[in-house]
Amino acid sequence: MRNLVHVPRIAYFGPSGTFTEMALDRFESLGALDVLGDGSSDVERISAASPPAALQLLRDRKVDGAVVPIESSVEGSVPPTMDALALGPRLQIVSEVELDIAFTVVTREGITRDRVRTIGAYPVAAAQVRRWIEDHLPDAEVVTAASNAGAAEDVASGKVDAAVSTALAGERLGLSVLADKVADFEGARTRFVLITQPRPVPKRTGVDRTSVVLQLPNEPGSLVRAITEFSTRGIDLSRIESRPTRREYGTYFFHLDCVGHIDDALVAEALQGLHRFAQVRFLGSWPAVSEHGVPPVSDDDDARWLDRLRRGED
Amino acid sequence: MRNLVHVPRIAYFGPSGTFTEMALDRFESLGALDVLGDGSSDVERISAASPPAALQLLRDRKVDGAVVPIESSVEGSVPPTMDALALGPRLQIVSEVELDIAFTVVTREGITRDRVRTIGAYPVAAAQVRRWIEDHLPDAEVVTAASNAGAAEDVASGKVDAAVSTALAGERLGLSVLADKVADFEGARTRFVLITQPRPVPKRTGVDRTSVVLQLPNEPGSLVRAITEFSTRGIDLSRIESRPTRREYGTYFFHLDCVGHIDDALVAEALQGLHRFAQVRFLGSWPAVSEHGVPPVSDDDDARWLDRLRRGED
Amino acid sequence: MRNLVHVPRIAYFGPSGTFTEMALDRFESLGALDVLGDGSSDVERISAASPPAALQLLRDRKVDGAVVPIESSVEGSVPPTMDALALGPRLQIVSEVELDIAFTVVTREGITRDRVRTIGAYPVAAAQVRRWIEDHLPDAEVVTAASNAGAAEDVASGKVDAAVSTALAGERLGLSVLADKVADFEGARTRFVLITQPRPVPKRTGVDRTSVVLQLPNEPGSLVRAITEFSTRGIDLSRIESRPTRREYGTYFFHLDCVGHIDDALVAEALQGLHRFAQVRFLGSWPAVSEHGVPPVSDDDDARWLDRLRRGED
Amino acid sequence: MRNLVHVPRIAYFGPSGTFTEMALDRFESLGALDVLGDGSSDVERISAASPPAALQLLRDRKVDGAVVPIESSVEGSVPPTMDALALGPRLQIVSEVELDIAFTVVTREGITRDRVRTIGAYPVAAAQVRRWIEDHLPDAEVVTAASNAGAAEDVASGKVDAAVSTALAGERLGLSVLADKVADFEGARTRFVLITQPRPVPKRTGVDRTSVVLQLPNEPGSLVRAITEFSTRGIDLSRIESRPTRREYGTYFFHLDCVGHIDDALVAEALQGLHRFAQVRFLGSWPAVSEHGVPPVSDDDDARWLDRLRRGED
Repeated sequence: MRNLVHVPRIAYFGPSGTFTEMALDRFESLGALDVLGDGSSDVERISAASPPAALQLLRDRKVDGAVVPIESSVEGSVPPTMDALALGPRLQIVSEVELDIAFTVVTREGITRDRVRTIGAYPVAAAQVRRWIEDHLPDAEVVTAASNAGAAEDVASGKVDAAVSTALAGERLGLSVLADKVADFEGARTRFVLITQPRPVPKRTGVDRTSVVLQLPNEPGSLVRAITEFSTRGIDLSRIESRPTRREYGTYFFHLDCVGHIDDALVAEALQGLHRFAQVRFLGSWPAVSEHGVPPVSDDDDARWLDRLRRGED
Repeated sequence: MRNLVHVPRIAYFGPSGTFTEMALDRFESLGALDVLGDGSSDVERISAASPPAALQLLRDRKVDGAVVPIESSVEGSVPPTMDALALGPRLQIVSEVELDIAFTVVTREGITRDRVRTIGAYPVAAAQVRRWIEDHLPDAEVVTAASNAGAAEDVASGKVDAAVSTALAGERLGLSVLADKVADFEGARTRFVLITQPRPVPKRTGVDRTSVVLQLPNEPGSLVRAITEFSTRGIDLSRIESRPTRREYGTYFFHLDCVGHIDDALVAEALQGLHRFAQVRFLGSWPAVSEHGVPPVSDDDDARWLDRLRRGED
Repeated sequence: MRNLVHVPRIAYFGPSGTFTEMALDRFESLGALDVLGDGSSDVERISAASPPAALQLLRDRKVDGAVVPIESSVEGSVPPTMDALALGPRLQIVSEVELDIAFTVVTREGITRDRVRTIGAYPVAAAQVRRWIEDHLPDAEVVTAASNAGAAEDVASGKVDAAVSTALAGERLGLSVLADKVADFEGARTRFVLITQPRPVPKRTGVDRTSVVLQLPNEPGSLVRAITEFSTRGIDLSRIESRPTRREYGTYFFHLDCVGHIDDALVAEALQGLHRFAQVRFLGSWPAVSEHGVPPVSDDDDARWLDRLRRGED
Repeated sequence: MRNLVHVPRIAYFGPSGTFTEMALDRFESLGALDVLGDGSSDVERISAASPPAALQLLRDRKVDGAVVPIESSVEGSVPPTMDALALGPRLQIVSEVELDIAFTVVTREGITRDRVRTIGAYPVAAAQVRRWIEDHLPDAEVVTAASNAGAAEDVASGKVDAAVSTALAGERLGLSVLADKVADFEGARTRFVLITQPRPVPKRTGVDRTSVVLQLPNEPGSLVRAITEFSTRGIDLSRIESRPTRREYGTYFFHLDCVGHIDDALVAEALQGLHRFAQVRFLGSWPAVSEHGVPPVSDDDDARWLDRLRRGED
């Protein structure tokens, strides 16, 4: 923003070496960041202490985009990301990637498995490798770290003997790898999204995801009505989640993801239907990295049928 | 069709003097028939023995339009009209009028009330004046006539002493009026419609009626789904009626009337929604003669909101 | 009611020889009338001029039961029966039979087909044999009769040359049969019901029909809500019909028939659900003469599951 | 279990001094634990490292009950608790309490505010006091602790200068209070539940909560159907939450809380309705500590109405 040749600045949930930074790598290699700059692939990376902190940098216009985790196949939605998207000025999701999540257990050079007395781990990670630690390091005490990359830093600084971390973090700090692809749950994946200021919606690809946050009127049946806007049009809901509004106990935001794109006529109808009775925050339509349900049927035929009726052509 | 100056030919449920012919008078005086000819008000009237016979003349292209009764506030929908609209090639309703239904009891000159031994009546009429006859002509035997106008003809021909008929029929046959505005139910009204071959839909007026005939898939929940297409969009259903298909016992056509016009975006959506899973016969959108529910909200604001989202303008 | 040995008195839509009387024969031979008397099969038959007249005799306690037509596979519901059930004190349907409807064309002895100039017909019958008359008696004029049996009486009295009537009527009047099993629509059937004062509901058989009349609150969505009470419980609706209340134009009674019995737990639930927001008139649960949909599942397993939960037995 | 006089053993999310232990105090003072022992108030407290660990002790029959947090007005549902309830053998919620959540900032004696360089905090707590720390200890570095009570232990052991903790933890460790009732969000509350092996459901009080976990068939409309089971009966849903099953990406458990008790007839109906098409895990019905919606209407009147119909009493 301040360079003659604009170098996009991207905030991410850091520090260096987190899975989120690995997702940023992926976005970069896919060219997903090109729209934020002049098309050259240079990107300035800004580490943020948390997903909300990354979004705050974006809202403060200190960065052009932000990369944060949004959903884990093991842990579910990432609440801080969800809440930061629901509150404050509207931001927009424009792209997604998914990473297989397996941890790398790192240690300082020369420390063998039987000498590990303490092992650092971010709580989310600890929950996903509990059984592995019981099986392989039964005597080690688990020490809480501030992030997956932070756990590696704790090894480097000597605070702990080993750490549940990422391959990237271990590599950057020159640590040894005690074990690779460590995960209690097979097939664990996390989805990360690239978020920007509101901008024109990416083109419909046919395999898209649309996300909204709803505030429903406090009336019986309003949740059914909201879901019916999708189901009656044959639109698959791929996720529904309630999150407290933090204003009044027992009041919620509803996060809904559906299959399809705002330029699918049926999805557009459903959004309009919601808009008629609820507060709708549109978080974006963007290409989904994998099929996540049946896309809504095109209603081009229906529209042509309707026009024939209007003209009396039967 | 065969004249240099085209004189519209209109079939109606006759014979001369029926309420339906009075409805045809009304359509003519309102200029509703102008679209069928060259704008001159001349109209050739063709009497048909029943509503289906009138529609058959239209389907056979022997007339340009047909006027038939469709619903009575006392008797409900007129089944022969409904069935004739549901079966055969599609026809289209383009206009409606409503008449207050009160009967005129006519007799031959010189016959006083105490000399009436037999009174002719069309069964529908007989049902609506039963109490009046019990009160005023307790000794008269009711003789079935083929139509309201036919009852007057039976008086003229001497078959009966008096008749439950219409003012128009009595006048044309030079009969005396024994009693006027005869009706057991106050405020009885009948709605008549003008039907044509499929043609461009009349302009939206803001107080419109739309009518469809549905054949629903034989699945649980399909009727709920059909009605939900309207209710979820806040569209008032003003009538719902099942009629046997005559093909298989227990299978039905559903006749639905709603408030609004095919050019109301929400009504268009609902019709498309029906079209996705049901066989929909569109019978038309046309100006309603009276408010019959709350018209659907315009969703221009919703559409603009959607476009702002697409462009990223929040 | 006034005899030492009580002979049940049954009103029916007459006169003698109507299809309705044939239905009464069927009820009698099936033993369906036994509950109304002391079990001896003697029955006194009272002819009524119309279905409402038959129900009026029942409401006036002048008869013990009434037999009326309720639905035709060709003509649909019989409006006078429906309206007479909806209005006035509640009555109850306790049994049903179905008759194949094919007409018998009768004439006086010695009159051959080529000598028939006029043919009497009840309008409902005329509509169902129009094509037959065009094919076989193209020169005959159709003269309106007061009922199917009345048409035969018109032949006997010399008013017309032939009549579209029933086998029973022709036989009773000693008329000749010109043609048998006359019907434009193959497989036409009519269902007749036996109606009594409110009484304990007949036992559940597993193949039952339940009928209600609803007055819904004048609120959007109330019709959807009513239908949902059935669909959400997997109960098949076999008929839905709106009929004008005759009080205010555009207000309706809804007649609903469903598969199942008030003693099916799911049907009971649905009725209670309706009762919470609508005026519900229960017309009865009774054995259906034929399968008319899938009966609701028993929820005995569900009930046992619930009880285990309450007791903490998992 | 092994004593002559049975002393109930209760697991809780520890260590000593957590909010959860304060909740356990509350349960004890309310007499909620009496049902687990012989009524004497003695209770043996077993600290567990996490909510799932507490439930594991219960499933292993090493304790008689477990106290865990389930929902925060700021953070929403507590995912580890939810997941531990959804997976493994069924357990049952029998009671709840709510605590106002405000933190106590503790330090070692003699350390004044300006000498605090490091402050320990459990991540959840850190998120709720971020602004307070920025305002009052702008130079302090936040160090991650394993729990709220653990943060206080870190102060006692000299690892950090101060800690965001609970009053109880500070008191037990003899620490000084730097600030009390610290919270960025006013009115923050957390709900804690007492969980046992399946047992008879506590009596209906009229202000109750019922909780279930659903696995829905992978069919369009199944979520709408589930919610409709409640809405169609006028039952308030107070919470809905999807959680990944951890088996297949994009498959979810649905956690639903509703107003009412399994002994409310309408709630029982809704549960049976769910049971007909979904896998339902009943987590219990128990007294709610505060109104959380309108309780379902009693349907005693409806039931009596139904019985009158069955007996023919109108």
